[in-house]
Amino acid sequence: MKFKIKERLQQQIDFIIEIDQLKTIKRQARLIIDPERQENDAEHSWHLAILILVLAEYAEDQNVDYFKSIKMVLIHDLVEIDAGDTYAYDEKAGKTKQCRELKAANRIFSLLPEDQAREFHTLWDEFEANVTSEARFARFIDCMHPVLQNYFSGGDAWKSNNTTALQIKSRMQNVKSGSNLLWKLTNNYIQAAVNRGMIKEKQGIDDVA
Amino acid sequence: MKFKIKERLQQQIDFIIEIDQLKTIKRQARLIIDPERQENDAEHSWHLAILILVLAEYAEDQNVDYFKSIKMVLIHDLVEIDAGDTYAYDEKAGKTKQCRELKAANRIFSLLPEDQAREFHTLWDEFEANVTSEARFARFIDCMHPVLQNYFSGGDAWKSNNTTALQIKSRMQNVKSGSNLLWKLTNNYIQAAVNRGMIKEKQGIDDVA
Repeated sequence: MKFKIKERLQQQIDFIIEIDQLKTIKRQARLIIDPERQENDAEHSWHLAILILVLAEYAEDQNVDYFKSIKMVLIHDLVEIDAGDTYAYDEKAGKTKQCRELKAANRIFSLLPEDQAREFHTLWDEFEANVTSEARFARFIDCMHPVLQNYFSGGDAWKSNNTTALQIKSRMQNVKSGSNLLWKLTNNYIQAAVNRGMIKEKQGIDDVA
Repeated sequence: MKFKIKERLQQQIDFIIEIDQLKTIKRQARLIIDPERQENDAEHSWHLAILILVLAEYAEDQNVDYFKSIKMVLIHDLVEIDAGDTYAYDEKAGKTKQCRELKAANRIFSLLPEDQAREFHTLWDEFEANVTSEARFARFIDCMHPVLQNYFSGGDAWKSNNTTALQIKSRMQNVKSGSNLLWKLTNNYIQAAVNRGMIKEKQGIDDVA
């Protein structure tokens, strides 16, 4: 470039350009409209933000600052630009996930000016810690979304990973306090997936619960 | 499904499933990380929300409710599920755009419960009207994003559409009041694109300004 740009603004543009990569990080879940194609993290993050806008009334804490939950879901997967998508039920990859993602967060957020780097990192930490109402609602939505996505796309992502109802329910134990009503609904979809042969209830000795 | 679900929640889930289609609406702009691939509307909407989070300090109105701007960009392209993406410089398609998109808004937002349908339609109307500070900032970001996306992906989308600097600048006349500082930056990228041979300054008698 031949034009000058202030350092702060340059850092912000660098970050914006860098995170374009999120559009190429593939998830296991497929598109509902095109089950042949895997969803990517940018599409997932957009969809989560809309889920929160539409379903905010069901957050367990009626005073939840749902704009904060939206901020969390918009940035929560940026770490996967470096760390890749770790399938929720991949136990081996799960063991190194936390370390890989923390390293990624340190690199990616620090592209921003210091105050914004701190703000984004703090938001991501809060999301990961799953303690505040905002994080719990955001994490619940992050777990509910693939259930809807897999159920309405025919369950191929579940089938190809031999995912079981018990695995999904076990994982959601940690987040269901974000919205008990939506947890009931999600549980109904999981049962309907079992009834329709998309997933098994559990897997004998391979059972992970 | 074999389980009961309240009508309101069913409408909300129907809307969430329906808008999965946004992930298949292709734009002219390419990915920076993969210029062979066109960006889709869901990826674009996600990226816009992040641009607003990061660049909010440059909104012309320092009191802008930037959460509202984020809501606008998250939903602004949903109408393209029915109406398709209209390239900004396609004059013929531009003539029918407003009518096609209004019809789409009426159908898609009305999938939601009445209060939310009204809220989303009102947000979309406000964005389209480009009068409030929130809409002006959101629309500016919506125009700035493809300039960054095209510039940093090498300009192929501009080249294949014979887009000129004058066309981009003319279009941005309507939105630059959203952020004069970011307009200067965007203008610098447009000039840099001319200098690097990605776009022509203007096109003789075909000039549309």
